[in-house]
Amino acid sequence: MRLSELSERSGITTATIKYYLREGLLPPGRRLTATQADYGEDHLRRLRLVRALIQVGKVPVATAREVLAAVEDESLDHHMRLGAAVWALPQDPGPVEEDPETAAARRTADELLRRLDWRYGLQAGASSPAYAMLVNAIAALARLGYPHGVENVLPYARLAGELAVADLDLVEEFTTPIEQVEAAVALTVLYEPVLLSLRRLAEAEESHKRFGAGK
Amino acid sequence: MRLSELSERSGITTATIKYYLREGLLPPGRRLTATQADYGEDHLRRLRLVRALIQVGKVPVATAREVLAAVEDESLDHHMRLGAAVWALPQDPGPVEEDPETAAARRTADELLRRLDWRYGLQAGASSPAYAMLVNAIAALARLGYPHGVENVLPYARLAGELAVADLDLVEEFTTPIEQVEAAVALTVLYEPVLLSLRRLAEAEESHKRFGAGK
Repeated sequence: MRLSELSERSGITTATIKYYLREGLLPPGRRLTATQADYGEDHLRRLRLVRALIQVGKVPVATAREVLAAVEDESLDHHMRLGAAVWALPQDPGPVEEDPETAAARRTADELLRRLDWRYGLQAGASSPAYAMLVNAIAALARLGYPHGVENVLPYARLAGELAVADLDLVEEFTTPIEQVEAAVALTVLYEPVLLSLRRLAEAEESHKRFGAGK
Repeated sequence: MRLSELSERSGITTATIKYYLREGLLPPGRRLTATQADYGEDHLRRLRLVRALIQVGKVPVATAREVLAAVEDESLDHHMRLGAAVWALPQDPGPVEEDPETAAARRTADELLRRLDWRYGLQAGASSPAYAMLVNAIAALARLGYPHGVENVLPYARLAGELAVADLDLVEEFTTPIEQVEAAVALTVLYEPVLLSLRRLAEAEESHKRFGAGK
């Protein structure tokens, strides 16, 4: 299809698509003439992912480029590519401090991963952005004197395990490996606000149940 | 205690504490002389909450003031105060669009709340920031062509219900009603990065399990 049709079908203006092309977020189309190129269904799918990352996930362009490079890295097998793409997603772990709370938080995180037998997380350890974010979040709880022990965090980790099952079930609704990798990245980002808003709605129900009138 | 001791025990500089006092985020101490005031344990506790909101939750000062006003609103009973304070927490629902996807997302959200029998959420409906955020998140999924039906979101909602049970269990570790309200606000904010990082770690485990070598 031509650029105009790609724009129409994706709902993205041609100016924005040209910007994504210049920034390397979208691979070039097949050149037809000096000024025209042909785009395929894979371009349409890629545009969808770029919008999920940039417009919904507020991911910076440079980071989106890294995520997409991992999505496209054919030197990795399917599972590694899926992991690498989600891995490259930005998570701001905040400034890493080297205080006693951070050291203790690292021990808590390791104990948690061991208890859950999350071997992949244990292997990746400190090099994983998600691990760094977890350590910082636990250290912040500790510094402020809120519950932060293994026993406090464990129920959240078990539920996160069930969330991941739901996530991968959605990913497996897509059939080809490349679509699955793209979906894993997009759904990780797009379901975060779903989850956080549902948690707040559920908190209101639960506090109504526990502390509401007549209780 | 004097300002210097409050600073030492909270780990917050006197300059920052004075700023919080000026901004109305911390109630004034009991005046002793023209230049000295006396602060109590409640000031120490409140400082902890202010730090959770501002430093960890990145909540703007004006919003933090609204949240704290709800925490202090003695005209509300315990459960309403708890709800109002969590309610006042910022959630950026993003620009609300009035397109077919948003209308459909609203129907999905309502059907979800009915299926779960979340009566409080149904009553509050469109006026709740968490509801608005959920509708926008579902509409974004729909616009990008990712799974967004009631059946897709329902597993996340059920898990959010279990998260809320874990949240309120932590809240009930605090004994007085005011401490419980403060904890509900702080833990809602502080456990978000815990949850999101654990979800990413769990996704890596789950994809390793499903697509890893030898599978």
